[in-house]
Formats: sequence, structure tokens, C-alpha cells
Amino acid sequence: MNVLIVGGGIMGLSVAVELAKSGQRVTVLERSIPGAEASSAAAGMLAPQLEMSHPGPFLDLCLRSRGLYPAWAKELEQRSGVDVEYVESGSLSVGFTEVEAHELDSQVAWQRAAGLRADFLTGAELRRFEPKLSDKALAAAYHPDDHQVDPSKLMKALSIAAARAGALFRTGYVRSLVEENGRVIGADVDGERLTAELVVLAAGSWSGLVAGGHVDPRVVKPARGQMVGLELRQPPTRCFLMSHSGYVVPRKDGRVLCGSTMELVGYDKHVTAKGVTKILSAAMDLVPELADASVTSTWSGLRPWSQDGLPLLGDSGVPGLLLATGHFRNGILLAPITAKVIGQLVRGEKVSVDLKPFRGQRNPS
Amino acid sequence: MNVLIVGGGIMGLSVAVELAKSGQRVTVLERSIPGAEASSAAAGMLAPQLEMSHPGPFLDLCLRSRGLYPAWAKELEQRSGVDVEYVESGSLSVGFTEVEAHELDSQVAWQRAAGLRADFLTGAELRRFEPKLSDKALAAAYHPDDHQVDPSKLMKALSIAAARAGALFRTGYVRSLVEENGRVIGADVDGERLTAELVVLAAGSWSGLVAGGHVDPRVVKPARGQMVGLELRQPPTRCFLMSHSGYVVPRKDGRVLCGSTMELVGYDKHVTAKGVTKILSAAMDLVPELADASVTSTWSGLRPWSQDGLPLLGDSGVPGLLLATGHFRNGILLAPITAKVIGQLVRGEKVSVDLKPFRGQRNPS
Repeated sequence: MNVLIVGGGIMGLSVAVELAKSGQRVTVLERSIPGAEASSAAAGMLAPQLEMSHPGPFLDLCLRSRGLYPAWAKELEQRSGVDVEYVESGSLSVGFTEVEAHELDSQVAWQRAAGLRADFLTGAELRRFEPKLSDKALAAAYHPDDHQVDPSKLMKALSIAAARAGALFRTGYVRSLVEENGRVIGADVDGERLTAELVVLAAGSWSGLVAGGHVDPRVVKPARGQMVGLELRQPPTRCFLMSHSGYVVPRKDGRVLCGSTMELVGYDKHVTAKGVTKILSAAMDLVPELADASVTSTWSGLRPWSQDGLPLLGDSGVPGLLLATGHFRNGILLAPITAKVIGQLVRGEKVSVDLKPFRGQRNPS
Repeated sequence: MNVLIVGGGIMGLSVAVELAKSGQRVTVLERSIPGAEASSAAAGMLAPQLEMSHPGPFLDLCLRSRGLYPAWAKELEQRSGVDVEYVESGSLSVGFTEVEAHELDSQVAWQRAAGLRADFLTGAELRRFEPKLSDKALAAAYHPDDHQVDPSKLMKALSIAAARAGALFRTGYVRSLVEENGRVIGADVDGERLTAELVVLAAGSWSGLVAGGHVDPRVVKPARGQMVGLELRQPPTRCFLMSHSGYVVPRKDGRVLCGSTMELVGYDKHVTAKGVTKILSAAMDLVPELADASVTSTWSGLRPWSQDGLPLLGDSGVPGLLLATGHFRNGILLAPITAKVIGQLVRGEKVSVDLKPFRGQRNPS
């Protein structure tokens, strides 16, 4: 089948690899460089247990995708020759107040009841486990099955793997999708009409701007996340860490990615004084020795926020058009399951996930 | 006279212009690029009244230099064609507590008694004068005669003016000065011996590392100052601002330079998480709207701290060697007077400043 994929981010490329390797003729349309936006800006936490505050179909989707990651990462490395730095680090959700400690205790309880591995650690246990953590931390939830990947490396690997599997890349602005008799039959790229049997819209925060894309711009919006990159001689902790104020993701090479903010400010990608201060304060609160770490970079990305917090995955409501967007904070995590279900839909196979909660035609409330 | 100047920073180039234009044969020795270090990292406040806590010969030296600035800047602009952005902005020292307000009141009192222009402003007066200042500011001291310059532009202008006046530039490491019969007669540059009738040591924080330079490395040390560059559509205030925690220097192009730290950490020029957080917090405390300003750059410079806070200016105690170093936080401000007195010494003229407090042979305490 001849497939156009709109967007060369984590979703577009993951889908491109999946489709190209099963023999579809795939063209990825990207206005700048594959991975230029949120995908490369992400911290790479594969951590459905870290923040998720309740069970449900979204947690299930995230857990399914996390379960696919080891084999998916390995296959990508073999296909591309790029180490995507998939590291089984575990995550820690850290509390600084009695209220937060109590929340963590409840979180561990329901996660264990759901059959997930999670441990509640007291402050003393926490510091035995991660000696560099602040004295002021009262408790933590440890999730040994939350892992991490390097999103930039992942984008590089996907890009190579997609090209090797036969996907074509084309640079250009998608002005609109083209519809005929109620069916999407292609896209207008810089004034040229490209036809296809199927279009996959995977344009992240820009999805609502694609005319004829059937994504309401009130439903998918950019949510800015600012980041600060630090550098130390060695990683301060094994796990990555999250508090109510921010997170800290140590990489094995001594880089420490610190985040983040959540700002609905349109497509403005500035890094602000307030954002940097908030991020660094949260990082130093978690790991005091980060105070002397070198600040090496700042950046921001535009996460595709969706109104109800769930991705738009699969059915768009219009024949010829599938959606793979609105993954918000969990795009990197959700790449393998997204690629898998889009592949199943394209090939007409039984889909292994109930996609009803994620269909595109949910109305904005 | 044939003069070697060790160091192509603000002091080396200011002296080079002064000497070359009066007909000396000048060679500037610089290991990298003129202005590569502290000179270009500075904020460019010409502000002896802003921080100075007491009268004395150092304040007098600073005031003399400030008085020379308008004509000096104009001459440099004419010689180089570069606008050094000398702006008569005025400065505000801002207090947030009753104790600080009282200190500012006393500061204004002694400065006025010394014949300087200074005004004490209450919080309400301050916000009428600078509406963007924080509501939390209780008082300020206004110094209409403190001004500013752009240090990068100044370095560019000096570099052009020096070359046009006939100064030569030579890249290389000065391994040591060369002495014969108790007199400095030149320098060893990368193994080559250059001779001169006079050597001027103007190597800033690196002065104590020049073998035979007669500057004790315990007396002149690098003091790291970190900086953060912000950007707004327009300058938030007319004056530049200082509190007990930091300073904010708006430039007319919308850049806002924020500083700084004071760290004796050797030659480590890293920008740290703690430094950036301190600087941004101080800036946002002064001008709350800076919270949303874009963070465009971070950098640091190594100020040549001197043990007693005074520069080493003029006599080194050894014939053939003059000093122009240890200017600490006031290098940009003190450039014109430094160039002037070194010029007078070289030409054998009467020196217009009593240099006794600044002679090189003060012992480390």
C-alpha cells in the first residue's frame, strides 16, 4: 500500500519503520529535519508508573508500550547500527512533605494491587539506596520497571532504520490533506498534490494546523516544556527522579537532563528566566550536589497536549486517514505500541489494543 | 620607546592605544584573541557610586576614570568607527529590607557630603521613576552619574584603534619575562626572546602565572563571575539596577545582562546550576516581568581579584616593568585612568594620580 506519513517526529518515523519493513511504500513528509521538534527535546523517561495517578486504559496502553521497548530498541539498534541508550535504570518519585509521602504510599499500594512492581521507601531507605538524594526527602516510590532511552539517539536510529527499510523522506510543508468523495486520497505539499491509499497524520503539536486533517486545534495544542542540561563527571544517581516540582534524568555520560515546565503559550519555544529557575531549583532540591554541576544547555519542546490527556490513535472518522498524535508527555514511551497498532490497522489485522478511548472523533468538551 | 604589553584585555589594549598614539612602538602579546576573557564577559557598569561602601583613594581613582569616560569613548569611536554604546543611564541601588534601606540612606548621605550627586528614593518614588521595579523594593539610591558601556564593542573599538595607531599584535604564550642585571628587558614568547625597553604586565587573572612578572599569585587570583543574558522586546528600566543579591543591566537593544557570582574556584569557567539560579532569582526579584524574558545565553568571566581590593597599577618594584592588573570588578571602569597614568609613566611626565596605594610591592598579608 502507498502511505503518506505527515510528520517526521517520533510517531511518524516509528510508524514509517513498521510499515516499510512489512512492505508498504512509505513517504514521510517533514517540513524541516526529522526529529527537529518535541521528539528530540524529550528527556526519554519510559515511566508509566512514575507519574500516573490512576489505573485505566491509558495506563494500560503505556504499560503495553513499555513492555515492547526492550525488543523494539534492540531491533532498531540492529537495523540502524545506532545505540539508542535504552537503560534499565528504574525511577523514583520523591516526596518532601507528609502529604506527598502519603500520596506515594497510596500510589505504591494501587500499583502493587494492579500487579506492578513498586516499593515505598522511607527517607532513610531512600538515601541508603541513592546516597546523593537530599536529606529533606521524606519518602519515595521506587519503580524498578521504569526505564529510559536517549530520544536524540532514538530519532537517529529510527531515521536510518526507516530509510534502510525503504521509506522515502520528503521535505515540505503539508498545506492540506486532499479529500475526494469523503475519503482522504493524498496531501498538498508546497502546492504539489501527492496521492496515496492512506495518510497517517503524525504532526504532533502541529496536527490541528493541517487543513483537512480532522484534528480540532482545540483538542491538540502545543504545551511548552523547558529543559536544562547539566553536566557532572559521573551520574549522581542510578534512577531518574521526579518530585512535585520537576525531574532529573542522569545519563551514563555525565549529562543530567532537568525538566520541566507545562505552559500553554502557543508555538513560542523561548526558554524563560522563570522556567530555568524553577527547573534548576527542583533539581537542586532533589540532588543538592547538582548546585555545582555545569549548565551546558537550555532548550524547550512543544508537547502535543490533548484535551482529555489521551492520544488520538487510529481511526480519524474519515476513510483513508489514520491518526497518531496527541501523545503529550508520553510520546517517546508510546512509540512502539503506536507503530504496532497503526501497522495492524494498515495491514487489516486484528488490533491488539482496544482503541475506542483514543479515537479521533471524540468531541471537544 | 619599544614597549611589550603582556595581555590583550581591556588594560592591555587601553594602554596600547595610549602609547601607540603618542609614538611608542607597541607590541601586544595575547595567547588567544584580544578580549577573550573577563573584559568581554563584563556587564559594563561604570558605577563607582553603586556599590562603593566608603570614600578613599580607590573611590577617587574610580571617579577620576568615570570622569574621563565620555571623551575617551568618543575618541575611541572616532579612531575605530565602532559605537561602544556609552549610555548615560544612571544606576539604582535597590533595598528590600529596612536594614538595606537604612544603608542606602547612609550611602547617599556620605556621597552627597563628598560632593557627588545621589538621591534617596522611597519605594513609591522608586516605582514612579522606574515603574517595572518590584513592589517589594522598599528604597533605592539613585546615582545619575553612573553610566554604562558595552564591553564587547569597547574591546572591538580598542582593538581597531590600537592597530590603526600602529600597535602590533602577536599571538603566543608568554612563558616568562626576561631580566638582566635586575632590569626587565623583554619576554620569552613560545620560546622566542623578544626584547623591549619596557614591559607592561596586563594579564588580568593570569598575571600571577607569568614567571618573572613580579606579581604574587596569592595577591592576584581569578574570581569567577557568572552571567545570564536575557532578552525582552524593550528595556524594562532606564537605569541599571543592583540589589544585595545581584544586578540587572538593560541594553537599548532589549538584551538584559544579569549577574553575578563571586567565586574563588581557580580558572574554572563553568556556569553552574546554583549560579544561574541565584542570578535569575535576583533579577526577577528586582524586575518581576523578567520572569518571562527569554534566556539567551550564559557565560562566566574570571575577574582579577586582588587581595586588598585595589589594583596593581604602575611601579612593579623592578626597573623596566610596569603593572596594570588586579582591577577586579572595576576593569572596564578603570581603563581610561589606567591608560592615562601608564602613558604618563612611560613618557616620564608628572603622574596625575597618587599611585602609592596601588604599587605592586605591597606584601600579601
